[in-house]
Amino acid sequence: VTIELIMIGNELISGEIPDANAFFMANALTEKGFQVTLVSMVGDQEDRISQVIGRARDHADAVIVSGGLGPTSDDLTTTAAAKAFGDSLILHKDILDQIRTRFAKRGMEMPLSNEKQAIFPSTAEIIPNPVGTAPGFFLRSSGKMFFFLPGVPRELRHLFRESVLPRIEKERKGNLYYRARTLKVFGLTESAIADRLREVQPETFSATLAYLPRYPENHVKVMVKGFNLEEVERKLRDLEEVIRAKLGGRVFAVDQETLEEIVGNLLKRHKATVAVAESCTGGLVAHRLTNISGSSEYFERGVVVYSNRAKTDILQVPVKRIAELGAVSAPVAEMMAEGVRRISQATLGLGITGIAGPTGGSEEKPVGTVFIALATPEATTSKRYQFWGDREQIKLIAAQTAIDWIRRFFLKPLKE
Amino acid sequence: VTIELIMIGNELISGEIPDANAFFMANALTEKGFQVTLVSMVGDQEDRISQVIGRARDHADAVIVSGGLGPTSDDLTTTAAAKAFGDSLILHKDILDQIRTRFAKRGMEMPLSNEKQAIFPSTAEIIPNPVGTAPGFFLRSSGKMFFFLPGVPRELRHLFRESVLPRIEKERKGNLYYRARTLKVFGLTESAIADRLREVQPETFSATLAYLPRYPENHVKVMVKGFNLEEVERKLRDLEEVIRAKLGGRVFAVDQETLEEIVGNLLKRHKATVAVAESCTGGLVAHRLTNISGSSEYFERGVVVYSNRAKTDILQVPVKRIAELGAVSAPVAEMMAEGVRRISQATLGLGITGIAGPTGGSEEKPVGTVFIALATPEATTSKRYQFWGDREQIKLIAAQTAIDWIRRFFLKPLKE
Repeated sequence: VTIELIMIGNELISGEIPDANAFFMANALTEKGFQVTLVSMVGDQEDRISQVIGRARDHADAVIVSGGLGPTSDDLTTTAAAKAFGDSLILHKDILDQIRTRFAKRGMEMPLSNEKQAIFPSTAEIIPNPVGTAPGFFLRSSGKMFFFLPGVPRELRHLFRESVLPRIEKERKGNLYYRARTLKVFGLTESAIADRLREVQPETFSATLAYLPRYPENHVKVMVKGFNLEEVERKLRDLEEVIRAKLGGRVFAVDQETLEEIVGNLLKRHKATVAVAESCTGGLVAHRLTNISGSSEYFERGVVVYSNRAKTDILQVPVKRIAELGAVSAPVAEMMAEGVRRISQATLGLGITGIAGPTGGSEEKPVGTVFIALATPEATTSKRYQFWGDREQIKLIAAQTAIDWIRRFFLKPLKE
Repeated sequence: VTIELIMIGNELISGEIPDANAFFMANALTEKGFQVTLVSMVGDQEDRISQVIGRARDHADAVIVSGGLGPTSDDLTTTAAAKAFGDSLILHKDILDQIRTRFAKRGMEMPLSNEKQAIFPSTAEIIPNPVGTAPGFFLRSSGKMFFFLPGVPRELRHLFRESVLPRIEKERKGNLYYRARTLKVFGLTESAIADRLREVQPETFSATLAYLPRYPENHVKVMVKGFNLEEVERKLRDLEEVIRAKLGGRVFAVDQETLEEIVGNLLKRHKATVAVAESCTGGLVAHRLTNISGSSEYFERGVVVYSNRAKTDILQVPVKRIAELGAVSAPVAEMMAEGVRRISQATLGLGITGIAGPTGGSEEKPVGTVFIALATPEATTSKRYQFWGDREQIKLIAAQTAIDWIRRFFLKPLKE
């Protein structure tokens, strides 16, 4: 089944808003084993929309059109579609009533312009939209499937998952099953991952592997297909196990999971708490840990000790030691970790000090030099890192590395 | 001049990597007054690429093709282009030598596959690429301009700015000049902005206005055109002044400037420092302020006092007061601001406490209730806000509001 995506809206072709819908659908369709062959973005011009829709019929088995179903005069998709298919337009009274009711529920009268959203090509089948006012519609032309969806991302995603994907899957010949899983890796470069997986033969699992760099992470996407759902799922599990064995503890999450979520769950499961003392990451570690709902259960406090005075005042790092060793040093990172653990009485104390740049580097400690320390009930350990990139990238990878220390603490014994 | 963009690569139509190149070019072209009529993304299939290129000739005055110029077997743009134009391919020996030299400089021998990057359609004019190995090329077919650029974003942007844009501008009829400026607004909704600008007549400045929501900011993009460069620039200045007068101090930056950059410059100019006590924003304020290079000059420290104990320990907010008032209250926000100012001896102390959700809300203090306080050498003030959205959105808008308090402090008298 080949698929074309057509995205409609002046905001897309004028570079006002980056596309999110085509990217989302292309990703979901590829995971299910469908091939997207063309993505077109066209402005709010009826002739152009009509032409692009008509052309798609010759090339793809299914066409998904998004946007231009709103109530205003620049929403032209429905009339353009009718034109492309030589179809007439009819008003669906039941849909009109539904839209009116939606407004009435909020104590508003339906503006006249919304009447438009109850008008559809005569051969169209309505796709109800429980999450917005504009319903989508489906029709068939020359045997090809055409789906029309609203452009609001939240609505598009809902209708795509609930109505479009199941319908396309039903028409797939041969009943092939597809399953995909993304293994998220941190702490190994793309080439190091490829090297470790050199002897893995995905073909023997009817699978393909894709490497997706997502700085500072690297993702390995596993896609398995087959004629039997249980077999496909078993092969996916088996291949995942093989890959995990090769990558040691470096796979930190799958699919939608984030590092901070995994770390939050580990802290909760171990009834542990954490406190963070940051210098070069400037609060990013605290920000990421507190992005998780319920993080107040395990995140005790954070301090962003940017000035040396703050390191001394809050964490009791002796002025003399900072002067001797420099604020960017292993002992200072360790004193920060121990200091924040002591004052907070948290289970774990994390300390990060480094040079995010672009200024402040020296020959001995160039930009990107970062010391990370973890104080635990048993011991305090620290490590020197050399990261590369601009200020933003160095903050990002230093914060990720620090958060990953918490995960790896709970992995004991640590696998390298 | 109408323009089509054609982006080539399997990674785009499979949803592996979101498009950045079309978005960048569409934005830059629109600012210069060109109209992008269609954006197509096509996979690494020679026939399909050739077809899409051929079709573009009938619709646009200029076509910009990006991607597929690399050395590997799935880089097919050059051969597809030759096919579309019925042209033959020739090897440019001088380009081959340049590529060889590039490798030699890094002490490497040129892989045989890179020879491909010196082959071009016979009618093509080479566009040199000083920032990468793959040169671009230009040709004319049926009077239309065709540009072929590498897909690496850094290289594409360079060649687009240096070679494509000047060439397209030269062919524009009538010598029209275009200037655009984005005014960044915070603290007013899109409809409030439209309301305040209701009586502004952009036509009288030969201008158009566009409203671009960029949560939590709202941007107003001003585009002016005319036959005389000085006149265009004067009109842009005049219209900007009119808009700024209507929006009071709510315009915080223009074009690429960020709020944290503006605030950093204000702090430096006033030789002032700031310290931050965060609860619900969880370190995001500190993270954003420290994203700016040189922020150690004015950012003294931050504390993320998530637990009540941290509020008491570090900031000396009395336990009894927290118990009486609740941690989310105006007096606690003020004590946080004053506490962090006192211990840090910074010029300004900022305190933020609230409920980021999705849990923890009550009828009296629903999710999104946030108190922000600023302690200055003169006084401490605080304000209660009610924000809406998910946890991420509430953190974002609360942090933005808090940072904007610093900016508005230096604007005195504060304009509402």
